[in-house]
Amino acid sequence: MIPYTRRAWLPMLVSPRGSLSPGVMRRVLAFGVIAAALWLAHRLIPRVSLSIGIHEVAGAVIALILAFRTNTAYNRFWEGRTLWGSIVNSSRNITRIVNAHAGVDPGAAREVAVWVVVFVHAARRSLRGQVERPEIDRLLPAEQIGALAEHAHPPLRAAQQISERLAAFVRAGSLERNMAVCAEEQLSVLVNCLGGCERILKTPTPLGYILLLQRGVALYLATLPLALVEALGVLTPLVTMMVAYPVLMIEALGGELDDPFGHEPNDLPLTRICDTIERDLLGSSPLNLVMASKAESYQD
Amino acid sequence: MIPYTRRAWLPMLVSPRGSLSPGVMRRVLAFGVIAAALWLAHRLIPRVSLSIGIHEVAGAVIALILAFRTNTAYNRFWEGRTLWGSIVNSSRNITRIVNAHAGVDPGAAREVAVWVVVFVHAARRSLRGQVERPEIDRLLPAEQIGALAEHAHPPLRAAQQISERLAAFVRAGSLERNMAVCAEEQLSVLVNCLGGCERILKTPTPLGYILLLQRGVALYLATLPLALVEALGVLTPLVTMMVAYPVLMIEALGGELDDPFGHEPNDLPLTRICDTIERDLLGSSPLNLVMASKAESYQD
Amino acid sequence: MIPYTRRAWLPMLVSPRGSLSPGVMRRVLAFGVIAAALWLAHRLIPRVSLSIGIHEVAGAVIALILAFRTNTAYNRFWEGRTLWGSIVNSSRNITRIVNAHAGVDPGAAREVAVWVVVFVHAARRSLRGQVERPEIDRLLPAEQIGALAEHAHPPLRAAQQISERLAAFVRAGSLERNMAVCAEEQLSVLVNCLGGCERILKTPTPLGYILLLQRGVALYLATLPLALVEALGVLTPLVTMMVAYPVLMIEALGGELDDPFGHEPNDLPLTRICDTIERDLLGSSPLNLVMASKAESYQD
Amino acid sequence: MIPYTRRAWLPMLVSPRGSLSPGVMRRVLAFGVIAAALWLAHRLIPRVSLSIGIHEVAGAVIALILAFRTNTAYNRFWEGRTLWGSIVNSSRNITRIVNAHAGVDPGAAREVAVWVVVFVHAARRSLRGQVERPEIDRLLPAEQIGALAEHAHPPLRAAQQISERLAAFVRAGSLERNMAVCAEEQLSVLVNCLGGCERILKTPTPLGYILLLQRGVALYLATLPLALVEALGVLTPLVTMMVAYPVLMIEALGGELDDPFGHEPNDLPLTRICDTIERDLLGSSPLNLVMASKAESYQD
Amino acid sequence: MIPYTRRAWLPMLVSPRGSLSPGVMRRVLAFGVIAAALWLAHRLIPRVSLSIGIHEVAGAVIALILAFRTNTAYNRFWEGRTLWGSIVNSSRNITRIVNAHAGVDPGAAREVAVWVVVFVHAARRSLRGQVERPEIDRLLPAEQIGALAEHAHPPLRAAQQISERLAAFVRAGSLERNMAVCAEEQLSVLVNCLGGCERILKTPTPLGYILLLQRGVALYLATLPLALVEALGVLTPLVTMMVAYPVLMIEALGGELDDPFGHEPNDLPLTRICDTIERDLLGSSPLNLVMASKAESYQD
Repeated sequence: MIPYTRRAWLPMLVSPRGSLSPGVMRRVLAFGVIAAALWLAHRLIPRVSLSIGIHEVAGAVIALILAFRTNTAYNRFWEGRTLWGSIVNSSRNITRIVNAHAGVDPGAAREVAVWVVVFVHAARRSLRGQVERPEIDRLLPAEQIGALAEHAHPPLRAAQQISERLAAFVRAGSLERNMAVCAEEQLSVLVNCLGGCERILKTPTPLGYILLLQRGVALYLATLPLALVEALGVLTPLVTMMVAYPVLMIEALGGELDDPFGHEPNDLPLTRICDTIERDLLGSSPLNLVMASKAESYQD
Repeated sequence: MIPYTRRAWLPMLVSPRGSLSPGVMRRVLAFGVIAAALWLAHRLIPRVSLSIGIHEVAGAVIALILAFRTNTAYNRFWEGRTLWGSIVNSSRNITRIVNAHAGVDPGAAREVAVWVVVFVHAARRSLRGQVERPEIDRLLPAEQIGALAEHAHPPLRAAQQISERLAAFVRAGSLERNMAVCAEEQLSVLVNCLGGCERILKTPTPLGYILLLQRGVALYLATLPLALVEALGVLTPLVTMMVAYPVLMIEALGGELDDPFGHEPNDLPLTRICDTIERDLLGSSPLNLVMASKAESYQD
Repeated sequence: MIPYTRRAWLPMLVSPRGSLSPGVMRRVLAFGVIAAALWLAHRLIPRVSLSIGIHEVAGAVIALILAFRTNTAYNRFWEGRTLWGSIVNSSRNITRIVNAHAGVDPGAAREVAVWVVVFVHAARRSLRGQVERPEIDRLLPAEQIGALAEHAHPPLRAAQQISERLAAFVRAGSLERNMAVCAEEQLSVLVNCLGGCERILKTPTPLGYILLLQRGVALYLATLPLALVEALGVLTPLVTMMVAYPVLMIEALGGELDDPFGHEPNDLPLTRICDTIERDLLGSSPLNLVMASKAESYQD
Repeated sequence: MIPYTRRAWLPMLVSPRGSLSPGVMRRVLAFGVIAAALWLAHRLIPRVSLSIGIHEVAGAVIALILAFRTNTAYNRFWEGRTLWGSIVNSSRNITRIVNAHAGVDPGAAREVAVWVVVFVHAARRSLRGQVERPEIDRLLPAEQIGALAEHAHPPLRAAQQISERLAAFVRAGSLERNMAVCAEEQLSVLVNCLGGCERILKTPTPLGYILLLQRGVALYLATLPLALVEALGVLTPLVTMMVAYPVLMIEALGGELDDPFGHEPNDLPLTRICDTIERDLLGSSPLNLVMASKAESYQD
Repeated sequence: MIPYTRRAWLPMLVSPRGSLSPGVMRRVLAFGVIAAALWLAHRLIPRVSLSIGIHEVAGAVIALILAFRTNTAYNRFWEGRTLWGSIVNSSRNITRIVNAHAGVDPGAAREVAVWVVVFVHAARRSLRGQVERPEIDRLLPAEQIGALAEHAHPPLRAAQQISERLAAFVRAGSLERNMAVCAEEQLSVLVNCLGGCERILKTPTPLGYILLLQRGVALYLATLPLALVEALGVLTPLVTMMVAYPVLMIEALGGELDDPFGHEPNDLPLTRICDTIERDLLGSSPLNLVMASKAESYQD
């Protein structure tokens, strides 16, 4: 994610940071080249032109799909953020309940908190398809590291470990049965949120709409110079590119936010969220050091 | 569902995959033929034409219904996906709770997990109106297969079996009563999600809107050449088809997503979701083999 | 509700079924007559005409209210459907919990299921303002029929009966207290869903918006011929009716879906939903026979 | 709230009832006067006119804010209605649970129902800023009336009374502890719904949007005659008023629904909802008599 | 937040209060200056002009992003308000449950209420990034003030204190175990709501959309005079500024509401909400005095 401060209207206007999704500039230039070619063709054969009316009719349909695309992409982004917000909340709730209501020694209570942190890190790694987890290896004894790595779905193994510790507390009489249910429900929220993130990750916007938007935009921008050339002459390529930039940016931003768990400029800062959780639950977090030693970005 | 990788902008633009819903090309051509006929009529009787203003007014109403149709269809698709996401989550929660909190032998715990997997497969088959269930027959003893097949609603029978096993654990004192309620609530979520999918399946978008959109679009596209013919001449059929393609695609995609549980290109990959559940709960899943032996698609 | 199969694009286009809300054709013709009158007036006094620009400005405001009307009406329809879906789910959950966890004889368990079915039928009758309930009279002993009919709110009496049976099971020690709470919560969902349906039924879209849309549409369509007559001549009434049809249909569909519990073409199939519940809970349902003997439609 | 029957299309069209929010007619006439003045100015100085293009551009921005305003106002109205629907539901649930599961004499059970009704009436009075509560004074003994009136927040005192009665039942062994929690959760729903209504009441739509819409509309309507006068001549004031009426009505309706708990024509019928609750919980309700004796409207 | 009374249409129209976000007037004037410069350029070189058609096409894309921006900003504002509404509700519920169901002396019950109020104040201070908390220092003994200030996340410490008091009540036998779970769940709601506010605070609208809107608006307004100058002449700067004002206001309001917890004119009145909670829970609140002595605004 790109952090930014609000209100600095003029500096923001001229700063280049964050204003281009990868590949957009290339596409804008390509449509500028097409426009220049059509302007040349028009100078040679003046009949090469269209009335602007057709582009107004087609523009309404494209605006409709752009609006749909923007809304669904933002909703996916925000749902992903809300799910991670719930992960933050539930990790706090589980730890608070165990600390206050379980009559166990601090070491056993801290062990539960460590497994919650492991769940969170494993969930992030799983959503990003990463198999190395140095920040987890710090936290667990060696045999647990191996068992976690071998499991088909590491976060589920962490959830199972928390559940078993709660069951052991109940059996030992140190945690009241009703409170164990209360903690188990918070654990189910953790598992549900991870499942929700996997749902977003594995179910992109239906391909049909993606293709429709992409092709509609390409056709629209490639024929727009024909409608402008009569009135604008040599300015045609410039104006075409000025229309192409926002349209292609909206399309590219839609694609970026569709999978909000990656490393693109507008994606969610999962590493920092996990760091917040570790800090809240274990008192401190050396996560930025771990990331730095692995040459990973702590900002994302 | 058609899986796809993001970002390959140019290859996606020219690939034919997924760009046509069944029947759309036929309709686009039909409106091209109508446009050609009207262009010929205009050459013979020049008075056969309309001003484009009327199509702008009518276009606003059609855009309004297209936007409504796209949003409701996508919402149905996404609600269906969310319900199946909750099925994944709750199946994980039930299994975790039984494994951690029930003091029973592993065989009895695994039997619950098997019945959860049976529920999930039976739900998928029920939503798709299929009566053969080879992947279930693998999992159950012979007498249970028959009883399941005879039941009016197989998934409900699976839920009943899970409930009875939980009750037996409580009676035997191996599962704490509060935890049994906790598992029973997760089972209610499974039943609620199946009910939600049945709701989407059995309640299509009201016919009135479907007909209004279809007829509005047909009338609009059939008369559009009259408005274009004066300005565009021989290009009229081409431009008409270029307007017809996105409009008819949006209409067809709406119809496809309205029932997201089928086998159409943009439908939900229920088989793969069920495979994920079986893998998470039973450790491995031979589902793709079972599907292959029955010549069914594992992708859907 | 009008059931329909998808995909038969061409047959659907030409079939008359479901394409007209009651009264719409009358109104379309009325505006055609007005248009014809204005065309005649224009032939006599050519100054009777308007520029189309004013209708474009006014059209934007009307499109805005039409979109608002369509969305709120569909949301009411879909919320009603979702509430009835939850009634299906909760009726299944209550029955499953009682069957699996209550150590009572099958007769007592079935009695609870019967009362759940009675609740559902009474809820449907109450929402439709019907006082005859032949399908309930079949299920209950004579004294209960009378008591139910006399109660101010029959569904609430059924809920009370279920609650009292659960309390009796707990007092007799045959149902565990925690499970009774679990069943009681499902019963609260039933009561909440009925309350939600009553809310939709008793709170129509605010009259202000209904009137605004109706009058805006009437004024728009009555003056539209003045804007068309110069360009279209004798075609004016035809084009006016072609614009009037979708606009008046959207308005009429909005009114139909506003109260989704009635017997209009696009309303919810409550009778069939109730039949599904009776079949799931009691094993079979003679509901279509009961309806037929009373000359009621089973489809609705 | 204005009750109305649907379907009577033509009578509704011509009936004056409900078609004007207070003050709107005055504003419409004011803009008519401005339009007449500008038409006169144009006759004297023909250069006083504008092209309609500018109003089309400005109209899009105003349509955007009108749509936003309408949607947020309706959502506030509907959220308020949903909250009161939940109050109806939870009041029924609390009473049902106490009646079925508490082994207390009918008088004590009825006392709880009376306090629920008191909560509901006190909530309505509190939302409307009324300090007289004759319908509550009927229900309570004299010392309770005084204590309620002195409390900073009367509905919270009623909730506290219900809670204490539930606690007394548990202490006396007549209500099972788990069921008391179940009732307490329903009581929390009552308190949450009242809190939700207070949230809507105390947080209007941000003033910035209100002002923007109001000033944008005023500027638009005051300059519209300049764009129309060339084409329409003496008809300019009439057409201006025809555009002003729906725009000003939408703005006024937005303001009316923003606070849905008042006494304006489109507000929620809180008194009748409270009457329904009293009837359901206590068997009968003399509320309309009480209201009549105080010269208050029972319809609202 | 700016409080206002509704209905005073005319006074509101002319009052300057709340009509300008900081910095907007400066930007409106800047675009007026640009317009004046372009008008001069046009007088010298008449070819410096554009057809208005291009701005209509570009205007549709900008309207689309403005609508998206307005909706997301308002949703963030309203979600923040709803979360604080839930904080009000849950603080009332915890206190009611402890007061009614815990058999402890009034001092111990009040101590819980004090810690709930401390949680609420600490949450507000934390969201606003303030480290001084005079209104908390009034409520706690000295050693607790220090411990709270040293904690990494003060509100979580307050939640932990509440949890530990509930656990102590259960251990002492004065609070029934099920009721403690019920109170603990309300406490989890408090923590979840704070987490939700932190989510809104730390995740602004993706920078890509902010930049796109800002630059699109700037480009649009800077080139608009070229399209107007031919028709409007010397009026060009005035009309440009009339279009710029609402567009720039919508953009600025979006930025203001994006972070609804600050001190800007349209932000949430957190201090008054906290005051309401303190008044409800502790009987009275000297918050406005505390604020006044620190020269802070009580209105916000």
